Amino acid sequence: MHPLQFHITHQDNATKARLGTIVTDHGEIQTPVFMPVGTAGTVKAVTQQQLVDLGAEIILSNTYHLYLRPGHQLIRELGGLHSFMSWARPILTDSGGFQVFSISSLRHITEEGVAFRSHLDGSSHFLSPEKAIEIQICLGADLLMAFDECTAYPSDFLITREGMERTLRWARKSKEAFETHKGVSWPHRQWLFGIGQGGIYPELRRECIDRLLDIDFPGYAMGGLSVGEPKNLMYEMVDLSTDRFPVEKPRYLMGVGTPRDLVECIVRGVDMFDCVMPTRNARNGWLFTREGHIVIKNAQYAKDAGPIDPQCQCSVCRRYSRAYLRHLFHANEILSAILNTHHNLYFYLDTIQQIRDAIASRNLLNYVTEFRSKQEIA
Amino acid sequence: MHPLQFHITHQDNATKARLGTIVTDHGEIQTPVFMPVGTAGTVKAVTQQQLVDLGAEIILSNTYHLYLRPGHQLIRELGGLHSFMSWARPILTDSGGFQVFSISSLRHITEEGVAFRSHLDGSSHFLSPEKAIEIQICLGADLLMAFDECTAYPSDFLITREGMERTLRWARKSKEAFETHKGVSWPHRQWLFGIGQGGIYPELRRECIDRLLDIDFPGYAMGGLSVGEPKNLMYEMVDLSTDRFPVEKPRYLMGVGTPRDLVECIVRGVDMFDCVMPTRNARNGWLFTREGHIVIKNAQYAKDAGPIDPQCQCSVCRRYSRAYLRHLFHANEILSAILNTHHNLYFYLDTIQQIRDAIASRNLLNYVTEFRSKQEIA
Repeated sequence: MHPLQFHITHQDNATKARLGTIVTDHGEIQTPVFMPVGTAGTVKAVTQQQLVDLGAEIILSNTYHLYLRPGHQLIRELGGLHSFMSWARPILTDSGGFQVFSISSLRHITEEGVAFRSHLDGSSHFLSPEKAIEIQICLGADLLMAFDECTAYPSDFLITREGMERTLRWARKSKEAFETHKGVSWPHRQWLFGIGQGGIYPELRRECIDRLLDIDFPGYAMGGLSVGEPKNLMYEMVDLSTDRFPVEKPRYLMGVGTPRDLVECIVRGVDMFDCVMPTRNARNGWLFTREGHIVIKNAQYAKDAGPIDPQCQCSVCRRYSRAYLRHLFHANEILSAILNTHHNLYFYLDTIQQIRDAIASRNLLNYVTEFRSKQEIA
Repeated sequence: MHPLQFHITHQDNATKARLGTIVTDHGEIQTPVFMPVGTAGTVKAVTQQQLVDLGAEIILSNTYHLYLRPGHQLIRELGGLHSFMSWARPILTDSGGFQVFSISSLRHITEEGVAFRSHLDGSSHFLSPEKAIEIQICLGADLLMAFDECTAYPSDFLITREGMERTLRWARKSKEAFETHKGVSWPHRQWLFGIGQGGIYPELRRECIDRLLDIDFPGYAMGGLSVGEPKNLMYEMVDLSTDRFPVEKPRYLMGVGTPRDLVECIVRGVDMFDCVMPTRNARNGWLFTREGHIVIKNAQYAKDAGPIDPQCQCSVCRRYSRAYLRHLFHANEILSAILNTHHNLYFYLDTIQQIRDAIASRNLLNYVTEFRSKQEIA
């Protein structure tokens, strides 16, 4: 595997936070980074040009969804996902594991992989480490994820250990498949990240990471978190994981989280995040502000001529009122999703930028204290 | 009523087509003009900035919808529709008549107006000429429409004449209500257009127009067309109407139509059009091209790497493939509506611009001949 260039440019004195740059053949990514989620090859309700304008440096797309529709071979024939969706910047694809466990039906897990029924049409499919890697290589993402088993919360110790052991065996198979097939389809380089599991059990998390390090990946992710466990447990698992990961490689916390989660986990040493929260919540009328969130459908905004967030510089807050956005939401207008999503993504990307600025200016702890006073933990 | 400034800058030699400029306090409108439809205070799936970028000089919004939700008084309190939706250019509102007859239920027509039930919640309402004008004045549109009765197709002569007579009585009442209330709410000027009815009966159309002229409006519309009658009958009604309307006032064909309709009716002397076709069809995957339309969901586009229309310069055709747009449509993604709508509106506004250029360069008949060979009539 080519080494992944990850340059740490600043290490915070008081916390585990750091600034870095990941270098891919589709461009550089400044970390800490938030990756908007483009499940089916589109970040819902925004155009690719808007994503660039918003400053998104990398997006995530879902292997499970693209495999089922339109199919990875079709995307490969059309030049890969970058070309297919007209997105020239980096892409990370997940392994499909999480979706198989959360969306599909009639799952049957064996040592070889998972048989399941499509949530779209009930058709039968089988995902294995080898298949998940083959699909991701066809999609042509820059960063790929090993196929893992995401243990539900709560799960007892023995079940969790079993899933962790399988995740490790699948991680090795994922890497073998990746080494066999990478470099065949695309001129650009691809890298495979390993995923640590272990539920809420510190000893399982630590053991999983130690054994992942033996397999050796250019970056490491924390999986199976933010699945219903208490926040303090999630933060604890993150903390002990980043203590274990090598300093010089990027650390990715999958599927997380609230704005508060980003801050709490950046100080605990996380470099990469993805979450549907800004986009999904936008479509449900949940809008983030620097003073906490507002629910735009509420009657109190019916005649509110002010912007979503008076402190926000986004094009939605500069132009549209809460009253208008409330009307669009109640009228079920597409523009509601468009404007709400734009604002929420701006909020997330702007928050990450402010955190990066605070790290660079050695002001992170003050920033975090202020942030905690305004952003609810859940 | 203030005179409406409408300057005719060019009259075609070979047809009744002309170029003109309507001057409003929210800006000038070059005619012939196509007005995108923003039913509920938003042109579905596009932002206001996109509309400006697309070159839309005026939009239409629906009195019926805005009256029911969020309510005209709320919009008035928030500074009128321009302010509410953040649209600084001209707006035309219809009278609500057509929607009462096409969307609402349990209609009961009397000489005073129409009692009906809301399509949203079944609540009871009453629209009269006076009420329709009051609502439109509150909304603050630049161009308002008289309250009319839209006769269904087919309707026999006597029914149609009855509707035409009522439309004339309501036109007079509309004008009286407008004269009483205009100028109270807004610093900008508003103008009220009359609407000719008469179904497919030439003598009723002519009589209706003659008697509308006696009432005197700054502009005139043709209503009750494109409601199911054969195209040749519609074109005939338009032709005899524009022969009757005064040359110096703008003529508006309501709710029309296909690209071919625009061309056919511009050569028959129409200055203004509105239609949901580009936006609604976009959401259904019906995309206009210079060689006729395509249905993007079709299997033939599954691996088609080309743009919607190779002759199109719009940002969608420059960036996205038919294969990707087909995928977005089948995945029911919001971006499907966004991109399809952008393209279709671009097509309509570009077509109108090309027609204006053809008129200006005295090349209209050649343009029309070429256009007819490529664009189906229905």
